[in-house]
Amino acid sequence: MSENPYASGAAFTQDGFVPIADAKISILDWGFTRSDVTYDVVHVFGGSFFRLADHLDRFATSMAKRRIAPPQSRAEMEAILHKVVALTGLRDSYVAMLALRGRPRVGGSRRPADCDNHFIAYALPWIDVMTPEVQERGGHLWIASTPRFPDASFDPTVKNYMWGDLTSGLLEAHDNGFDTAVLCDAEGFVTEGPGFNVFIVKDGTVLTPDRGSLGGITRRSVLDLCEAEGIPSGIAPITRAMLEDADEVFTATTAGGVMPISRLNHRILGNDRPGPMSARLKALYWQRHREGWHGTPVDYSLSA
Amino acid sequence: MSENPYASGAAFTQDGFVPIADAKISILDWGFTRSDVTYDVVHVFGGSFFRLADHLDRFATSMAKRRIAPPQSRAEMEAILHKVVALTGLRDSYVAMLALRGRPRVGGSRRPADCDNHFIAYALPWIDVMTPEVQERGGHLWIASTPRFPDASFDPTVKNYMWGDLTSGLLEAHDNGFDTAVLCDAEGFVTEGPGFNVFIVKDGTVLTPDRGSLGGITRRSVLDLCEAEGIPSGIAPITRAMLEDADEVFTATTAGGVMPISRLNHRILGNDRPGPMSARLKALYWQRHREGWHGTPVDYSLSA
Repeated sequence: MSENPYASGAAFTQDGFVPIADAKISILDWGFTRSDVTYDVVHVFGGSFFRLADHLDRFATSMAKRRIAPPQSRAEMEAILHKVVALTGLRDSYVAMLALRGRPRVGGSRRPADCDNHFIAYALPWIDVMTPEVQERGGHLWIASTPRFPDASFDPTVKNYMWGDLTSGLLEAHDNGFDTAVLCDAEGFVTEGPGFNVFIVKDGTVLTPDRGSLGGITRRSVLDLCEAEGIPSGIAPITRAMLEDADEVFTATTAGGVMPISRLNHRILGNDRPGPMSARLKALYWQRHREGWHGTPVDYSLSA
Repeated sequence: MSENPYASGAAFTQDGFVPIADAKISILDWGFTRSDVTYDVVHVFGGSFFRLADHLDRFATSMAKRRIAPPQSRAEMEAILHKVVALTGLRDSYVAMLALRGRPRVGGSRRPADCDNHFIAYALPWIDVMTPEVQERGGHLWIASTPRFPDASFDPTVKNYMWGDLTSGLLEAHDNGFDTAVLCDAEGFVTEGPGFNVFIVKDGTVLTPDRGSLGGITRRSVLDLCEAEGIPSGIAPITRAMLEDADEVFTATTAGGVMPISRLNHRILGNDRPGPMSARLKALYWQRHREGWHGTPVDYSLSA
């Protein structure tokens, strides 16, 4: 059998379909030089996309808010997403879609409206934000001193690569021997971490922040599961004090699902292990996946 | 004579020295996917770099603050900058140096410390942030409603590509028929615009904001010129009201130098033309260039 050149990942770029190692952008693309790009990430589990329509909806909203309009229709983007996964042959995959500002078609222009926007997609082997070992013992979460960028400066529901504040928080976390970080805003309200939403559990109620956060699809799935199970839950202002006083804390992201936290700064939560509600929601989240919940089978015939 | 393949720009990337059209980065580089990159821009005027040592100093500070350490020494970076200009043969050039986080050398790592940082440099034909025609009539500057990212979330003296707030301001400006924008912070203090510092002139005194701004090299040059000419000047808090009430407004950036403003929102400044102090400082700035002020001759022998 010949080796599949797309085994470690496949991409669609301005060069067409290419192995991930060849997937590149110009160093002059404003998607890079102005971080003028929005993106989304959907995962494939057991050969099916999870909540693909929801991801495409969010991506469309993000593009509209930033006025980035690649030439592909939604149906064409969707077909490209199927094809990048099909090329890899992966049954579990991390799949990204990006819309970049591109470069001005008018020489010397500094106007976003003069740029040729473009679409990129790629599929990689499954990625966990926290390794399975860390998820088993529970993540160690550092409450960073760096305040999250305020919603007024940039709408946090537009998924973006402007991670400067999150990276600062991550560096702080690692300096202190922690796995990852959560940021509060300047007013002391909990927001999110680098690549994930945060939840607290207090007296049986599951809450997630109402500000400074992406409208995560995994976050929505958790709230859906709570509703289906009759677990009180909601989106609410969460102060740093509420976080520190929580019975349980967990994070939620496409690249990892529900990931329990066992340490919060120097406080050990529960028994230094994932709490019961976090473990229950994590188990439910993956059980529903195995049942085909919100699944769209990948069209693997596109690899031909 | 054969055409120089570097005529429209030359770059140094992980692929070595390449024509600008071939200068690319991986779509997985954290310099892109986390905007985890810092950079600097120096210009070449009449065959000499302007304040090269100051740009390299600032770049070194930015890299240290973000803990990005490419393998090249400062002397090696400097030699690369000379070489990219030499390859183009340009006597007037826009020259950028970038330090990117790169990609993790450990599969699946999410830790910035696990990444192989790298250095990119490129030289392009001279770029003006405002076209010569706009500079002649004076730029039309829009005071944007989007607040600048706060200094506490990201140190604005670290030159960066996280332009989401600036791009929002620029879109607002263009929607209103203006050339470019200036942003205030959430407290109503003037900061900077997309790629330039801002100055006001009031009763003969020249002032530039003390916050939310890059420590611009052109800004410093303007302050140096003021000092040499005995013009009162300084770095101070500037409210939006002070900006609106200014006698003159001008901007300052490497890619354009001193650029006068003739309209500020719907207020026409002076005679709808560059003000006398702005015009004087602009003329002085370029006169000093012609005299070799802070110049470092490019080593064009490196093109061989």
